[in-house]
Amino acid sequence: MAEVIAPATRAPREPRNGVNTPTLFATINAVKEMPALAQFKFRVSNQWRSGTHSESRIESFSGAGGEHYHQSEFRYGADHPAVLVGQDRGPTPIEFLLHGLASCITAGIGNIAAARGVTLTSVESHVEGEIDLQGLLGISDTVRNGYERIRISFTIAGDAPPEKLREIVEQSRARSAVFDVLTNGVPVDITVNTRA
Amino acid sequence: MAEVIAPATRAPREPRNGVNTPTLFATINAVKEMPALAQFKFRVSNQWRSGTHSESRIESFSGAGGEHYHQSEFRYGADHPAVLVGQDRGPTPIEFLLHGLASCITAGIGNIAAARGVTLTSVESHVEGEIDLQGLLGISDTVRNGYERIRISFTIAGDAPPEKLREIVEQSRARSAVFDVLTNGVPVDITVNTRA
Repeated sequence: MAEVIAPATRAPREPRNGVNTPTLFATINAVKEMPALAQFKFRVSNQWRSGTHSESRIESFSGAGGEHYHQSEFRYGADHPAVLVGQDRGPTPIEFLLHGLASCITAGIGNIAAARGVTLTSVESHVEGEIDLQGLLGISDTVRNGYERIRISFTIAGDAPPEKLREIVEQSRARSAVFDVLTNGVPVDITVNTRA
Repeated sequence: MAEVIAPATRAPREPRNGVNTPTLFATINAVKEMPALAQFKFRVSNQWRSGTHSESRIESFSGAGGEHYHQSEFRYGADHPAVLVGQDRGPTPIEFLLHGLASCITAGIGNIAAARGVTLTSVESHVEGEIDLQGLLGISDTVRNGYERIRISFTIAGDAPPEKLREIVEQSRARSAVFDVLTNGVPVDITVNTRA
């Protein structure tokens, strides 16, 4: 709390909140100059293990004109819990959407606060999704399969007035990739190959 | 050819594919008898670490008339990669949506195949999401923030003709919670609390 809130127009910003703000601005400017750099493809490979348990690998993606590998390969299991006749070897698939939502808006908060010269102390969030399983269990044709509603509550602290902290969260929401996909939907194409 | 999960009208199936099919049918019947059991709430708590890095905990959920804890607490990081000015301490938030999609449809495939008496040998999938970062970087107001399209490709093998295997994937898609949320969207409410 010792730092003075920087004027909104000061540039360039120094690194803050663990964000290399000059590099962030340089990246945005580079993409402005050459929009083809903005085309990204993210990928996940999944293998069924047993029952409702499967495992995904996340290794590489393309973007900024090339192929990239994550520093390490990430592996995540997913399963149904015992009450839903699974073995609970991982969270349910639909819980990962909540993690995606919270972490996406939170990442944006880190960047936007740095860009606005605000030093953050903490950002916590709790997400809850309500689902009526009569849909996916095939018991009802009028109940949807997925969440009926998601609620996310942020608690944010930093060296700015409450109103400015709220604006940072709102700006992150307004530019969140996961919030957009979850609230607006996205076309999903499925293809199926069979093997003997 | 088109079978459905209809426990009331079919002879009990034996366990198969790691699915306790009799318990699955009993669970569906119990929910039919008492629809309140179908109301579930899934939850994730997230804490910002630094920059674009945050960590989520997944511990408990409510449903089937009570509170439940996962057998172990699950923790997942998320971050932006170096090319997007992050530290790559986890996948990007939006990659977790792809994991959720693949694992949700795959879990359904395991259950539906067991219910239809099909023994699976393997189920693999590859998911790819296309995103134009001009949206979330704030460079364009006409480009959306999230994925423009997701493609998922399944390769499935088991002791059934190709057409029956395809029907299992299609039935899983038709009842997938994550597919529903991603393609149709869901209302998301955000609240913000500030701390000094």
